[in-house]
Amino acid sequence: MNKLLEKLKIEIPIIQAGMAGGITSPELVAAVSNAGALGTIGAGYMSPTSLKKSIHTVKELTSKPFAVNLFAVNLEVFSTDINEMQKLLNTYRKELGIEMGKKQVKVKDYLQEKIYLIIKEKVPIVSTAFGVLSSILIDRLKKNNITLIGMATNLEEALLLQDAGYDLIVAQGFEAGGHRGTFNTVKYPRGCEISLHVLVQSLIKNISLPIIAAGGIYAREQIAGLLKQGASGVQLGTRFLVAEEAGTNDSYRRAILKADYGDTVITNAFSGRPARALRNEFIDEMEESGIPILPFPIQNELTKDIRAAGSDFAISEVQSLWAGQGAGGITKEETAREIINSLHQENAAKKVDV
Amino acid sequence: MNKLLEKLKIEIPIIQAGMAGGITSPELVAAVSNAGALGTIGAGYMSPTSLKKSIHTVKELTSKPFAVNLFAVNLEVFSTDINEMQKLLNTYRKELGIEMGKKQVKVKDYLQEKIYLIIKEKVPIVSTAFGVLSSILIDRLKKNNITLIGMATNLEEALLLQDAGYDLIVAQGFEAGGHRGTFNTVKYPRGCEISLHVLVQSLIKNISLPIIAAGGIYAREQIAGLLKQGASGVQLGTRFLVAEEAGTNDSYRRAILKADYGDTVITNAFSGRPARALRNEFIDEMEESGIPILPFPIQNELTKDIRAAGSDFAISEVQSLWAGQGAGGITKEETAREIINSLHQENAAKKVDV
Repeated sequence: MNKLLEKLKIEIPIIQAGMAGGITSPELVAAVSNAGALGTIGAGYMSPTSLKKSIHTVKELTSKPFAVNLFAVNLEVFSTDINEMQKLLNTYRKELGIEMGKKQVKVKDYLQEKIYLIIKEKVPIVSTAFGVLSSILIDRLKKNNITLIGMATNLEEALLLQDAGYDLIVAQGFEAGGHRGTFNTVKYPRGCEISLHVLVQSLIKNISLPIIAAGGIYAREQIAGLLKQGASGVQLGTRFLVAEEAGTNDSYRRAILKADYGDTVITNAFSGRPARALRNEFIDEMEESGIPILPFPIQNELTKDIRAAGSDFAISEVQSLWAGQGAGGITKEETAREIINSLHQENAAKKVDV
Repeated sequence: MNKLLEKLKIEIPIIQAGMAGGITSPELVAAVSNAGALGTIGAGYMSPTSLKKSIHTVKELTSKPFAVNLFAVNLEVFSTDINEMQKLLNTYRKELGIEMGKKQVKVKDYLQEKIYLIIKEKVPIVSTAFGVLSSILIDRLKKNNITLIGMATNLEEALLLQDAGYDLIVAQGFEAGGHRGTFNTVKYPRGCEISLHVLVQSLIKNISLPIIAAGGIYAREQIAGLLKQGASGVQLGTRFLVAEEAGTNDSYRRAILKADYGDTVITNAFSGRPARALRNEFIDEMEESGIPILPFPIQNELTKDIRAAGSDFAISEVQSLWAGQGAGGITKEETAREIINSLHQENAAKKVDV
């Protein structure tokens, strides 16, 4: 028995990534779990109220296990030193016809409240990114038999997660879409750049926990190869972005479907943290402006209304089109079940008569 | 029968990369081929005289097939506009106690002469990087039954190589050491950044030639995974850098053996072309200088004496320490045969009881 399947109580070693920002609708999460894989609510930016509603709806739609994804960093911030960036961003707001930006930014993260809620709601699995949860929170989750999945972009981070008591490790390769999970973005401004198969190799040899490979995966041959290498499971984000059940807006979906393999870049223009997205005008213009990007989550909070307007008005050039390098191989919208069935077939690798 | 083994007339689907700059001693090339894999003379910068001598020595040491690697770009250049860079480089020369730099630079590439020599010497296999050989040279090689291996960093390049008549394609992932094979470094200043398993997936689905996976490979589990995914073979450079038979100097060897997975960066500081190397003082200082790096091969020619002095005086901080991301997993020097034996074992992947 695969330890990953045992620990997560699922049938297929595929995890739908906990993409934040309204992508992981309860319908998507439940459909993935109902298909035998693991659905994940991307709750990084959610309020406790939204998360509660989301958990309840998922529970109505499935009796299978599912996960909640959280950010293991302090998001609490209050800043007034945002004038220069707001001035630049106001040029977008003017063009989009939305309200000008505020003179200060305030973010609360509700991490403790969300952990309490997860325990109360008996959510069986929590996954985290960007760091290691505090030992108090880890103890609390483990006392309630909640399985913990951490994300690492190098061996050092994986060892920290293992030592802290996490149960499984997601190895996030450089090719992955969305935010780099790298803990120390001062040391690695673009995030750690280790590619997936090198990262998996270093973890299977040095970490005793099951390893979940993530980054650029969109096809069954990749999964067959990574499991053969020694990964216990895989995690996919981008492919589920275009699942029929996902909350992804239409212009974002179209951008993914028409993307080529080389179209993604690492940028911190949207959030202040390095992340992989389809290159667009917003990224290019922010980089060319020479104005320093503010740290996460300040930059994220400042660009939120612009990205939302981009979604409302179907303007992909001002949206954060998070995508992995595998976007180039994704060409159609399908149900979550169809996606999982196409990814999970035995003896799937191309026959080469070795 | 694996088509790659058939085309190359070898027994083990492993190719030793054609690393330029004196690494691929005839002893290394012959030892790799004698072990059943494919040795390659890295002849990109060689004169026809050196290449001839190298081919003769390899032939004395093995009767097995071997390859010669060439650069499929025009290296011919004459430039006098090098003052600013020479001024900066002279600070290194002064410190190293070597002759100051010249006021002009001249490079000849002898590509045609080397092709003639290869045909005359009946070398069975030619591999190329950086582009597609001219149709005249391809015709000439093919008429002489020479097998052609091209290197691609994206699907577009692979299609160009296939259309031009190449026989096999090396898929060079972002994690690979040394120069990025990317054809268009104006469009991709860091080289194309597609990771290996994503690149392999795009090629096995869209290219009919056998695909050779390259980049970050150092362990048998990676090879098992990539073959399972659909690659027909693999190419390794960094692991062979520390083969006992290799021409690698001692300080370079030590740097590889002590490297960690995250220690490599993409830089054009040494040659004017993006390449992956272990980060060192030379790279950092060149980038901080703000002085524009000259195009390939001018920059390469200008830094050559400094790098050679670094080798002579065992100063790794001014050498081009080309290395892939797998350097972090390489911990000992072995013979080429020991390396190949450790990489080539059946059922090698970690058992995970799926």
